[in-house]
Amino acid sequence: MKTLRSIAAVLILVAAGHRSASAQDPLPSWNDGAAKKAIVDFVQTTTTQGSPKFVPTEERIATFDQDGTLWVEHPVYSQLVYCLDRVPALVKAKPELADVEPFKTVLSGDREAIARLPEEDLLKIAVATLSGMSVDDFTTEVKKWSAGARDPRWKRPYTELTYLPMREVLTYLRANGYKTYIVTGGGQDFVRTYSERVYGIPPEQVVGTAGATTYGYDKDGRPFLTKDAKLILNDNNAGKAEGIHLMIGRRPHAAFGNTAGDQQMLEYTGAGDGVRLMMLVLHDDAKREYAYGPATGLPDTKVGAFSQALYDEAKKKGWTVISMQKDWKQIFSFEK
Amino acid sequence: MKTLRSIAAVLILVAAGHRSASAQDPLPSWNDGAAKKAIVDFVQTTTTQGSPKFVPTEERIATFDQDGTLWVEHPVYSQLVYCLDRVPALVKAKPELADVEPFKTVLSGDREAIARLPEEDLLKIAVATLSGMSVDDFTTEVKKWSAGARDPRWKRPYTELTYLPMREVLTYLRANGYKTYIVTGGGQDFVRTYSERVYGIPPEQVVGTAGATTYGYDKDGRPFLTKDAKLILNDNNAGKAEGIHLMIGRRPHAAFGNTAGDQQMLEYTGAGDGVRLMMLVLHDDAKREYAYGPATGLPDTKVGAFSQALYDEAKKKGWTVISMQKDWKQIFSFEK
Repeated sequence: MKTLRSIAAVLILVAAGHRSASAQDPLPSWNDGAAKKAIVDFVQTTTTQGSPKFVPTEERIATFDQDGTLWVEHPVYSQLVYCLDRVPALVKAKPELADVEPFKTVLSGDREAIARLPEEDLLKIAVATLSGMSVDDFTTEVKKWSAGARDPRWKRPYTELTYLPMREVLTYLRANGYKTYIVTGGGQDFVRTYSERVYGIPPEQVVGTAGATTYGYDKDGRPFLTKDAKLILNDNNAGKAEGIHLMIGRRPHAAFGNTAGDQQMLEYTGAGDGVRLMMLVLHDDAKREYAYGPATGLPDTKVGAFSQALYDEAKKKGWTVISMQKDWKQIFSFEK
Repeated sequence: MKTLRSIAAVLILVAAGHRSASAQDPLPSWNDGAAKKAIVDFVQTTTTQGSPKFVPTEERIATFDQDGTLWVEHPVYSQLVYCLDRVPALVKAKPELADVEPFKTVLSGDREAIARLPEEDLLKIAVATLSGMSVDDFTTEVKKWSAGARDPRWKRPYTELTYLPMREVLTYLRANGYKTYIVTGGGQDFVRTYSERVYGIPPEQVVGTAGATTYGYDKDGRPFLTKDAKLILNDNNAGKAEGIHLMIGRRPHAAFGNTAGDQQMLEYTGAGDGVRLMMLVLHDDAKREYAYGPATGLPDTKVGAFSQALYDEAKKKGWTVISMQKDWKQIFSFEK
């Protein structure tokens, strides 16, 4: 048998050699430039056997913010749209909420009034629509909603609004032994319903804002988990570094973000030894996507707080800023 | 190229077929019997293409309690020994604790008095010795301690007191595409310091009792995490099912435990569809390890609460009980 297997091994090596000689560009949607070079250099330096900066496979961890880094976050997070869309069903189940703010305003359908709701009202809506049900019922609802909901600008499911260049980075890193994680301020249970299908990232590699659950039994004695209003992890800002420690227990070698909410994740990544890759997506493409933050001089939007201060820190620390306009040939896979 | 690769593929299939025909027993430390058969049948049923109970690779999750399931927990958890061993250093740093109970008793070295300390005193010691330091300092301390500490009966590092038959199960499941997790009432950060070396389980696949951390900066502006006293997850009883949802987000297909603290994890696993494997390790081997719980009729020890009620539930629900005495040919790899 040894001979047969040796022949097979040789043939595979020949095949692999041939394949890599004619290797395709791993990042075809990227223009040549500092950002693309930073990614390719990082992968080659950390995965080439004998490189002084070689990283063993088991330590290859890369973390990605979701909203604004892997898909569109502007003008509102899709999860907030979900929460607002759930209010009618919530009020149907609890009619006493119909005359209580902020539910009353949401029910009125007055878009301008809804857009003016302060942060604490949005939090009330989030808690009311994201807790109190079983984990299974919640998953079913989100999947149903995701299949039907459409972004108003592109008239497509939100799950199609992912950035093709970033999906190429995910694939490229994974092909080189990196475990890719989403580390999101969004709800962990929410993102897990589609992360595998949309990004190839399994639920156990999604770290997000998470509430407690409570174990109980239904009338047939079958156990189930109920989603509680109690917050376990606020996965924003310092919470991203804390969440990475809680859920992964290793410091990432690469981290990608786009707002001040990702600052600590990038700092924490950069504080490790050896070569680390820290990148920020700059939204400077008003035509193909959106422009906000320091690219515009406009005040930060509620969701896109890529502040001038963060931009300055990136420059000082050598983090690489990705210009959507200059670095990305194509933004969405549905273009052309 | 296609032809070369096809030839290679065929040769590999031939080689694989030949190899499996002469396959070694994957569980050589197990005696033939219902327990061994349950494991082998489960793996074959869930991983054979075309089997009506086939489980896709990405859903293959198996969870293992640690103390008493993967290694010795009797007469005390090794983590508790660590906490007690840390008390002198703690008092050196905070001399005001020298005259405060329960630290005073621990410092006295009076073994009988220490053994009599109530649960709430042990919790005080745990909180004082497991929080307040940086994550990095904690990891360094635990690794140093693990290298030097010895179990008093076998005079070996605690990390050598793993059960060989269970390590074979871990290897066998992984070879068949299962992701293996530790789901322990022990400290997540504590177990993660040795899980990869001892069990081949990486830190990100250790779910345990976990405290919050706080992100901050040292005097040079370098970020670090401090371990807080605030509990995020009490990974015992219902907390095991809740922790699996928080950290993994999928229901296991196989779960292994040994005490009432594992009951809900096994129930939650068993409530899934298709074929699920639920197993309990029964400590009935006073000679080679220990006998406690329903095997002895003796009251449950503090740590080994495999109660008669759990034993009865196992019988009713068809969970498989593993008898250390009858099912295991060899318990430790250092024997013989």
